[in-house]
Amino acid sequence: MRTSIATVSLSGSLTEKLAAASRAGFDGVEIFENDLLASPLTPEDIRARCADLGLSIDLYQPMRDIEAVPPEEFARNLRRARHKFELMGRLGADTVLVCSSVSPLAEDHDALAAAQLRQLADLAQDFGIRVAYEALAWGRHVNTYDHAWRIVEAADHPALGTCLDSFHILARGSDPKGIEDIPGEKIFFLQLADAPLMAMDVLQWSRHYRCFPGQGGLDVTGLVRHVIAAGYQGPLSLEIFNDVFRQAEAGPTAVDAHRSLLVLQEAAGLAALPEPVVPTGAAFVELVTADAEPASALLGALGFARVARHRSKPVDLWQQGEARVLVNTGPAARRDGTSLAAVGLESPDPSGAARRAEALLAPVLPRRLAPEDALLDAVAAPDGTELFFVATQDAAQRPAPPHWRADFVDVPHQDAAPHGVTRIDHLALTQPWHEFDEAVLFHRSVLGLHAQDSVDVADPYGLHRSRAVTNADGSVRIALGVGPAPTEDGARAQHIALATDDVVATARAFRDAGGRLLAVPANYYDDLAARHEFPDGELETYRELGILYDRDAYGEFRHCYTHTVGRVFFELAQRDGGYRGYGAQNAPVRLAAQHAVR
Amino acid sequence: MRTSIATVSLSGSLTEKLAAASRAGFDGVEIFENDLLASPLTPEDIRARCADLGLSIDLYQPMRDIEAVPPEEFARNLRRARHKFELMGRLGADTVLVCSSVSPLAEDHDALAAAQLRQLADLAQDFGIRVAYEALAWGRHVNTYDHAWRIVEAADHPALGTCLDSFHILARGSDPKGIEDIPGEKIFFLQLADAPLMAMDVLQWSRHYRCFPGQGGLDVTGLVRHVIAAGYQGPLSLEIFNDVFRQAEAGPTAVDAHRSLLVLQEAAGLAALPEPVVPTGAAFVELVTADAEPASALLGALGFARVARHRSKPVDLWQQGEARVLVNTGPAARRDGTSLAAVGLESPDPSGAARRAEALLAPVLPRRLAPEDALLDAVAAPDGTELFFVATQDAAQRPAPPHWRADFVDVPHQDAAPHGVTRIDHLALTQPWHEFDEAVLFHRSVLGLHAQDSVDVADPYGLHRSRAVTNADGSVRIALGVGPAPTEDGARAQHIALATDDVVATARAFRDAGGRLLAVPANYYDDLAARHEFPDGELETYRELGILYDRDAYGEFRHCYTHTVGRVFFELAQRDGGYRGYGAQNAPVRLAAQHAVR
Repeated sequence: MRTSIATVSLSGSLTEKLAAASRAGFDGVEIFENDLLASPLTPEDIRARCADLGLSIDLYQPMRDIEAVPPEEFARNLRRARHKFELMGRLGADTVLVCSSVSPLAEDHDALAAAQLRQLADLAQDFGIRVAYEALAWGRHVNTYDHAWRIVEAADHPALGTCLDSFHILARGSDPKGIEDIPGEKIFFLQLADAPLMAMDVLQWSRHYRCFPGQGGLDVTGLVRHVIAAGYQGPLSLEIFNDVFRQAEAGPTAVDAHRSLLVLQEAAGLAALPEPVVPTGAAFVELVTADAEPASALLGALGFARVARHRSKPVDLWQQGEARVLVNTGPAARRDGTSLAAVGLESPDPSGAARRAEALLAPVLPRRLAPEDALLDAVAAPDGTELFFVATQDAAQRPAPPHWRADFVDVPHQDAAPHGVTRIDHLALTQPWHEFDEAVLFHRSVLGLHAQDSVDVADPYGLHRSRAVTNADGSVRIALGVGPAPTEDGARAQHIALATDDVVATARAFRDAGGRLLAVPANYYDDLAARHEFPDGELETYRELGILYDRDAYGEFRHCYTHTVGRVFFELAQRDGGYRGYGAQNAPVRLAAQHAVR
Repeated sequence: MRTSIATVSLSGSLTEKLAAASRAGFDGVEIFENDLLASPLTPEDIRARCADLGLSIDLYQPMRDIEAVPPEEFARNLRRARHKFELMGRLGADTVLVCSSVSPLAEDHDALAAAQLRQLADLAQDFGIRVAYEALAWGRHVNTYDHAWRIVEAADHPALGTCLDSFHILARGSDPKGIEDIPGEKIFFLQLADAPLMAMDVLQWSRHYRCFPGQGGLDVTGLVRHVIAAGYQGPLSLEIFNDVFRQAEAGPTAVDAHRSLLVLQEAAGLAALPEPVVPTGAAFVELVTADAEPASALLGALGFARVARHRSKPVDLWQQGEARVLVNTGPAARRDGTSLAAVGLESPDPSGAARRAEALLAPVLPRRLAPEDALLDAVAAPDGTELFFVATQDAAQRPAPPHWRADFVDVPHQDAAPHGVTRIDHLALTQPWHEFDEAVLFHRSVLGLHAQDSVDVADPYGLHRSRAVTNADGSVRIALGVGPAPTEDGARAQHIALATDDVVATARAFRDAGGRLLAVPANYYDDLAARHEFPDGELETYRELGILYDRDAYGEFRHCYTHTVGRVFFELAQRDGGYRGYGAQNAPVRLAAQHAVR
């Protein structure tokens, strides 16, 4: 179906908004009146600009407080409408949104509303314009879609139809099933928005917290199915008011917006995308750094061995158990420290995974490889982290693609006694503050991962939010997080949690090898003693090593942290009995301890 | 009364929080358990630190999910409590907060709750500790203060009392009158928080939106009156969870917090402060700049004449009608442009105004003056703007203090034909984003100004909020604003609105004198024509000069803007017929036009 977006959903000048919508692949836009008023472009300029960008103008909006008012007020409203219809002619827009009245002058009088809307439609028809009447959830007398439709039906004018908005309908808890009773050709427009489920004033909720479909808690897909069943032929259009989007750059927001409509269409059975290929494991993480020494020392102390080197690039492969870390000192390395640049995900079908990512607007990365290297399928996540899709190691089922590991040449190494790390438990990736919801939707839709509930955590300097995405067996776990507004240098820390079956032994071996463990305050252990009973000596061991403890309904979690190198640190994690979390309850203590050593 | 603050209300490490509370003048603190857990200080260290800082530890909090549970669970809870009582002994805290249970294990069984709380109190008594039981607004079975009190009364134990929290009581709409029926000695503690009135889930409201008394919409003062009438003798303690405070610096937040308690005590009749002395006019504004040329050129084009120069400092006085602007090129001038540094407020009692400001913790500014200069009473507003209190020009009623104007020596000047500016209409001062509510409370309480409703305005890159404070006759108007997170250079624009009886003539004279008026898009005037009818030619004039138009129930407003010099620009404003606003409806267009010329 055709896709469209209201200019109010994006930040910047009207010129910037239109360019962003076009680049992201939208077919059309709704022109929000205030964006036009504030623009130095004339309506004719805007029309030409849209044509150049391949954008249709699907709606002009909104016209307010028109109907069910005393005659002299309605005469003023018609005068105002005539001005706007002339403007729409210059703009080349043929549909106008009329919101149900919130005016104290409006009467609770459906027949009057219908009669006046019929008059408005008569005038509109003279200009070749259609009027789409929409119930605002906080409309004074008309605030449900079926009520708005009854008035449109009673007015019975060919230039008058209704506009449906998923937020207004679902936020009030209306049953969208009844949409199917509206003739499709009378649904002049469909606006889509999601929102997190919040018990708050609906107007405030609408004005500040709307989000793209799939980012909130409303069943937008179900609503769209009903609208399609009714026979609607118009575009799917996003109208999102959100305080965060207002401040974020228009370009990436428009891409995220368009992705949400693609995912929605797939879910509603309106479009086919390449099937998701769920990753089956973390093949490697890649650190980039100008100076490999601090990261190498840390990996060595953790019990990793430098087992191989890339045959054409300055990249070392460190391994312990099934955990692999690449250390790259190539051109991508930043001068200012070590950072996590890429994640290798094991995939049963790497090129299929990349095809889906590309169809969902993920930037496909150039394959910077020597001729003899394995072709790697890679895309960028919203925060810029590179995701490589690599063939599962056990590729017996399918014709083996060239394997990434073959590009690495073994190097002689001391078989350092490993410290018990078995694999990567999870990755914790801090997102830019305005990209958290987008990152969750990206990982769910592009990678086919499941999102757990989000968790709020207070640290000494602000509130952190975190939400984990995982595959079914937990062999891929990524904790996406967002913290206080970035500090001066905008640094976002990332961390890699390594699984061990005996965190005490692994932590001790790390420390004995010269590693520095994050010190945890003694008060934390006094509190643990108050909350749980431990075998003799166990708490003393935790205290000595800085091991934190948590339990849930399924099992137990013990974990500790290394010092930070650049923007990266490691966690050692022991999960027992099916524990499902990430120790979020301990995060305030960990964050405070990290602040203290900075 | 003694004042106290919960450590959770301030940002930073526990050490930073304690220092900030002490410096701001609090008598005591509530130690929030998570702050203690995350601190490297032992309980004994914290006790000593508090003693050094002159802070008592008034409360340890919270203990959760204690009561009305099955016996084996209660045994675990008593074990946990014993640990905490031992800790409190080390800390030197003698009162613990117990919140009503939210546990799914808790039964709806008041007698069981009372019996178990009695057992808890028995144990507490052995440690010399008192238990203060509080109803959370979202407690599973106990969520009103009278219910919590009935259970405490039934338990009938000398070491068990109740804790009252203004948020939990007022957010649920409970009538605080009933507090007077509780014996004062059984009210072990009083926690105070305000909150903006929002229809939302009470737990989310409580966790994220609490604010200091007087900054929200709850009648905290009325509640305190009832608690005092009941005979309560303990401290007034602030417990505020707020996402903004979590990120703001602890020092200024603690000062704002303490100011709110001083104002509250005055309002509740518990303490006397020097009376507010409401300013009667804007005597001058002071711009500081390293280069006086751009500001002087702008003032000249506006029709101001340079009438005098300070006898000992590099400060020029520009005047037109009763509007006065000082241009200071002295040491305070920043290298990076012109900014608004100070406001002179006419006051019937300058030193009285300064005494009140000082009593309300406003920093008193050094009087950097030559020996013969008039003594100026000056304090700093929360955003750093200097406020000078100067004697009203007509000081016939009282022994005239030396007048600030006497420090300026007239300079010969061409009597530039004035352009019709009569006085300063209002000042628009953009606040740092985390100090908006504090600034409003400061201007209300320190200056005795009245705060109007706050207004939200969208600009292309984010949401702005603005709230005006005024004196009774509108001769002092200050529009406090807050905008999107600061840009790279953190610049906050300020502007000075100049009153004129004929904005068209003044704007034209400004333009003819070489001034640059902000250009307003043509689309704005098309919209004005749709909304209102104007006499022939009037809109064309507005369009030519970039004059914006608004009306309210009282009258009309016409205004336009100059270009920006450094961080400052001017507005020309014509108010007719008692218009009360500031043209907020036009702000998006103005802001977009200003973004466009940047």
